[in-house]
Amino acid sequence: MKINAQRLLQNLDRYAQIGKKGRIGVERIALSQEDKQARDLLKNQMIDAGLKVHIDRLGNMIGIRKGKSDVKPVAFGSHLDTVYSGGRYDGALGVLAGLELIQTLNEKQIETDKPLALVNFTNEEGVRFAPDMMGSHIYAGMADLNSILNSPAYDNPNESVGSCLHAIGYFGDMKPGAIEFDAYYELHIEQGPVLELEQINIGVVEQVQGIYWTRYRINGEANHAGTTPVYYRKDAGFTAAKLQKYIGEYTREREGTVLTTVGSVKFSPDAINIVPDTATFTLDVRSTDEALLKRAQKEIDEFIEETVSEDGLSFEREELVRFSPVRFPLVMTDTVQSAAKSLGLNYKRMPSGAGHDAQMMAHFCPSTMIFIPSVRGISHNVEEYSHDEDVENGANVLLGAVLGRSAIS
Amino acid sequence: MKINAQRLLQNLDRYAQIGKKGRIGVERIALSQEDKQARDLLKNQMIDAGLKVHIDRLGNMIGIRKGKSDVKPVAFGSHLDTVYSGGRYDGALGVLAGLELIQTLNEKQIETDKPLALVNFTNEEGVRFAPDMMGSHIYAGMADLNSILNSPAYDNPNESVGSCLHAIGYFGDMKPGAIEFDAYYELHIEQGPVLELEQINIGVVEQVQGIYWTRYRINGEANHAGTTPVYYRKDAGFTAAKLQKYIGEYTREREGTVLTTVGSVKFSPDAINIVPDTATFTLDVRSTDEALLKRAQKEIDEFIEETVSEDGLSFEREELVRFSPVRFPLVMTDTVQSAAKSLGLNYKRMPSGAGHDAQMMAHFCPSTMIFIPSVRGISHNVEEYSHDEDVENGANVLLGAVLGRSAIS
Repeated sequence: MKINAQRLLQNLDRYAQIGKKGRIGVERIALSQEDKQARDLLKNQMIDAGLKVHIDRLGNMIGIRKGKSDVKPVAFGSHLDTVYSGGRYDGALGVLAGLELIQTLNEKQIETDKPLALVNFTNEEGVRFAPDMMGSHIYAGMADLNSILNSPAYDNPNESVGSCLHAIGYFGDMKPGAIEFDAYYELHIEQGPVLELEQINIGVVEQVQGIYWTRYRINGEANHAGTTPVYYRKDAGFTAAKLQKYIGEYTREREGTVLTTVGSVKFSPDAINIVPDTATFTLDVRSTDEALLKRAQKEIDEFIEETVSEDGLSFEREELVRFSPVRFPLVMTDTVQSAAKSLGLNYKRMPSGAGHDAQMMAHFCPSTMIFIPSVRGISHNVEEYSHDEDVENGANVLLGAVLGRSAIS
Repeated sequence: MKINAQRLLQNLDRYAQIGKKGRIGVERIALSQEDKQARDLLKNQMIDAGLKVHIDRLGNMIGIRKGKSDVKPVAFGSHLDTVYSGGRYDGALGVLAGLELIQTLNEKQIETDKPLALVNFTNEEGVRFAPDMMGSHIYAGMADLNSILNSPAYDNPNESVGSCLHAIGYFGDMKPGAIEFDAYYELHIEQGPVLELEQINIGVVEQVQGIYWTRYRINGEANHAGTTPVYYRKDAGFTAAKLQKYIGEYTREREGTVLTTVGSVKFSPDAINIVPDTATFTLDVRSTDEALLKRAQKEIDEFIEETVSEDGLSFEREELVRFSPVRFPLVMTDTVQSAAKSLGLNYKRMPSGAGHDAQMMAHFCPSTMIFIPSVRGISHNVEEYSHDEDVENGANVLLGAVLGRSAIS
């Protein structure tokens, strides 16, 4: 049995019109009017597909398809929100492939043993409201709902998650997590170049990397670039450059076991003829191995402390994010691998470099993810693209894995 | 003979009220209403002091005091304009000490052999209109007046130097450079920490450093920090960090013979979880030795080219400023040194790290500068400060040097 690829691609294109940006891109920020439009369409499509739709108090949408047995449903889905100037696949693919899966089962009049649950999580991207992966975070019981509902918009302190949920009509009455899941599958684009480079059809996602984000601010002294002798300078920019170089080399010497990135740097006063008094930069450290992750953070912190002290400067350090790595159970990844195999697709067991709802759901029920190739690894970008054939393959693997899991043996 | 320190300090304070900013600072942008007010006050004070005032077509103000002989006047002065959030000494000191010198000679009824010329140059700072040192640039015949008059404001393309000169009533009828000078002296604050650190009263300025400004843009590729393997990255930020570190070490290894500074750095897209696709940074290179200056620029350019190429990236390079070093003649610096000596002040022969009108005037007539200590080297800042005693010493040295030069032997 296979999904209807044409219908899925048409549906992806239909959602891509809601918040269309650029040639093929989408901008559909969580809890915006565009998000509401996409949610309304999904709700109607869920109802048309015979699902019973539940909305929880954080706006998470769960559509239930009954099974032969009244047990916990096998869940699958992702999110409909995007980043600013985002793509049409990141999020929507997992939701719409899930819908397609149900439409296919309906057409073939197949009733699964276990019920099925199609999920659209609220605010995975965290563009206007912190934290990201918000809906799954709460659904999995990892944070307090009320404090999240009060979380203000980055760009407008008068708007909160709660007020925006009310405004778009998605403040539901179900307690998040009230419907327990037998398992959770998430089909997603890789958002990296590996599958395409290695000509692999399917990524069987075994783990999600842990992520540590830290912001450093090096404090020196602003001085005239022409009149201040070198021995008198406290050049925050020079010190920061040494730290950035160390961080760049750190990951290159460890051949991918730990990824370290400096993505943002700001100088002050940032003038051509003034020695900078402050240099602020961010550090993104990721690894699937928590020990390596912690060691990297510690070694980098030590280097920063020593270097700043040697240079006679001072620094501040702000921890922004600390997510531990997540390992998906073999019993889950094996269902994905078997589905890929039986479809004659080649696959690669791999980690996810990005964060996803599935890593939160892993704390709630057995979970895993299915990756398809991203052209040139481009994502979080209006040019994000995956080939139609890969979209089809991914949806068929999702179908196969869900059918495997939903059978009561 | 000495100047009247109290009168000079009071006059400095009077001008500091025009565009007052902060506790003791000033913001008096060239060709602004504040500049007009300060110019009007100076014009009246020049007339009161018996000077014949000439305004040239770029608004440069020259007040002539007759001498016993009808020869070229000995000139001295500086500028009344400031940077945004500037100080009360940078520029105004040289003009007002010159005025004080004339008032002192008037009181003592002393007629010098050569005539004297007090000068206020237009737009030394170049805050709203390029280039800086504009008035002296044109007075010395180093650029075309008409193209400078058409130079638009950075912040408003509808305003030009010419239109603003008309608006404040300082578009004069004298051809710039029409009054030739026997010599040009400029008293100025050091704007660096050296005199204060070494407890020196007077800087005898032998040279002005050459200045090269260049902007580099390193081009890489934006990629997800979590999903992009190291071997696939084109991290413009990492490459830029290596270049910045090299530039910082370059000057430190050369112990002040060449100063190199990276004052401005910008990443794009400048996000914590995105490998930056571009890193733009500026290079400020200075030296009193043109050969060293050129070699530094060449060696840094070569290192940038090699490193960027090794990293598989590309770069662009934009030359912003190329000023050659200027050496002031011994016959001029010796008059300053003698004046300091005869006042019992200690002095240091030193270069100027910053650019000044005197470096332009050096192409027009024998020129030099006198520096007094800047507290903590702070300048281009509302907290710019020099002790009253140093202001007094500087003005007395100016008086002594001008008297030395104005005698016909």
